[in-house]
Amino acid sequence: MSRESELIAALRALATDPAARGLLDDAAVLEIGGVTLVLTHDMIVENVHFLPGDPPEDVAWKLVAVNFSDLAAKGAKPIGVLLGFGLREDAAWNNAFVGGLGRALAAFGTPLLGGDTTSLPVDAPNSFGMTAIGIASGPVPSRSGASEGDMLWVSGTIGDARPGLRIARRERSGPEWLVERYRNPRPRLEAGQALAPLVSAMMDLSDGLLLDAHRLAAASNVGIRVELDSVPLSEAYLEYEEGDAAGRLSAATAGDDYELMFTAAPDRATEILGLGEKLGLPFTRVGTVEQGAGISLFHEGRQIPLPPRLGYEHN
Amino acid sequence: MSRESELIAALRALATDPAARGLLDDAAVLEIGGVTLVLTHDMIVENVHFLPGDPPEDVAWKLVAVNFSDLAAKGAKPIGVLLGFGLREDAAWNNAFVGGLGRALAAFGTPLLGGDTTSLPVDAPNSFGMTAIGIASGPVPSRSGASEGDMLWVSGTIGDARPGLRIARRERSGPEWLVERYRNPRPRLEAGQALAPLVSAMMDLSDGLLLDAHRLAAASNVGIRVELDSVPLSEAYLEYEEGDAAGRLSAATAGDDYELMFTAAPDRATEILGLGEKLGLPFTRVGTVEQGAGISLFHEGRQIPLPPRLGYEHN
Repeated sequence: MSRESELIAALRALATDPAARGLLDDAAVLEIGGVTLVLTHDMIVENVHFLPGDPPEDVAWKLVAVNFSDLAAKGAKPIGVLLGFGLREDAAWNNAFVGGLGRALAAFGTPLLGGDTTSLPVDAPNSFGMTAIGIASGPVPSRSGASEGDMLWVSGTIGDARPGLRIARRERSGPEWLVERYRNPRPRLEAGQALAPLVSAMMDLSDGLLLDAHRLAAASNVGIRVELDSVPLSEAYLEYEEGDAAGRLSAATAGDDYELMFTAAPDRATEILGLGEKLGLPFTRVGTVEQGAGISLFHEGRQIPLPPRLGYEHN
Repeated sequence: MSRESELIAALRALATDPAARGLLDDAAVLEIGGVTLVLTHDMIVENVHFLPGDPPEDVAWKLVAVNFSDLAAKGAKPIGVLLGFGLREDAAWNNAFVGGLGRALAAFGTPLLGGDTTSLPVDAPNSFGMTAIGIASGPVPSRSGASEGDMLWVSGTIGDARPGLRIARRERSGPEWLVERYRNPRPRLEAGQALAPLVSAMMDLSDGLLLDAHRLAAASNVGIRVELDSVPLSEAYLEYEEGDAAGRLSAATAGDDYELMFTAAPDRATEILGLGEKLGLPFTRVGTVEQGAGISLFHEGRQIPLPPRLGYEHN
């Protein structure tokens, strides 16, 4: 066990309330007065989650988006946020960040409810925390509900953000649309709320499809077979990378997708596909839940070895 | 207007929901399904809120205490917390922090509900965020309810933490009890819940009695007269500082008290004193709410000038 997993095990021992879901889920789920509250907290830190040169408006957007993506995965609608704002000397940066925060919150019709500002030491990396509070109007999918025979699905397209990051860093050139996918991910709130009653398990994709599928399999105590050739790729991605096994593997191990991944019984497939059409957001079947443990990878019907790194752990 | 107050004004423009209380209060107050939720978020950063040499258990205690002190000031009982945990390389430090967090949460019977861990860049100061969720069973006092003729009260003793900090830093010697008051402040949860129905306004003291009284006066649109000679000082404080006007002024401008300050109509005085006896926590009358604006300072019946610095702004 790594030092970090030891630490998380120690934290888990403090999370004895059922609302904590053993810290194994994207969010806490609290029943209050007949209302289901969904609560999540994410931090973003300069040089870990964003680059010093990223536009501050986009950093604010990302802070909101990563939190709301957790709510989306639990079928919840955001009702407010609390902000932890580390202030540095750069007033122009801070003001632009607040402007971006305002635009992001307005886009989702969500108010700022409170929080804390604190001056940071001069050399400290910029860092922010956000707590998002959501309400679920129905069942709240967990990561642990997948069962044998379920289909594995994802929303949207996979793998766009990593090349977007490389283009943003000017390591390579490529379609600006990919940079947008890196900087301005869209939390799938509407889809999450509509899918929640249909799925057996759901989470958001933040660390790479294969790694997150591995986690979902572990939480549900099942195996998952992933069909690499079914992983949906954007046109922009295919301008940047080949659509062959290597290119698809690159997409399936890239992080920062902020798409939904979910499992559902096969008899839900028609309804799910119809919902995708209605929302204008494709849902694609990318695998199957099986007996066993861990994930297995198939390309054009043949099993292929798992890559040594299944995804990207942000921490 | 300073740059920071400009920024806070910009944030306030995003806090249009009544639950946000205009970001002018210690916490957000959200009515959900007939239940009153109180939500607060505080950050603590190394070299700003704690010292690199502070025991990690005490840093964890303080993170919990500062958040619960906000809940106490709103008469709320904590039901859970979310943690933002910046991880550095020092596994022993991290483990001791989690141990301290466990002891603090156990002391208040509150579970960890969720949160986020993130690796920090090597040179970054340790930093933590916590969101505390509480429930109020009655009215939630604001900072803005004080009216002319009300009495101003504080709980416990004032000014102990600043000398505690100096003793901890070995800048001076003095009673260890003061260090305890700096490192292990006790949020006045029980008192806050019992006081909530009796008070017209309440907040916790974090930045110095005079500065916080100034803020309460501004939020309530009243003036406050503070009787310096009534400010309750501990025996340990009086071993460290003189009990004269200068020593009292030093106490009344020191931060990190985490006591409650509240206003109440004069006919509540007997009940408030009785409650203090019952709880074993003295409540002391330290001033009067008047017409006007700002605070005025009296010592032994004579007005004395306000000090140039009313308190300590942590930010």
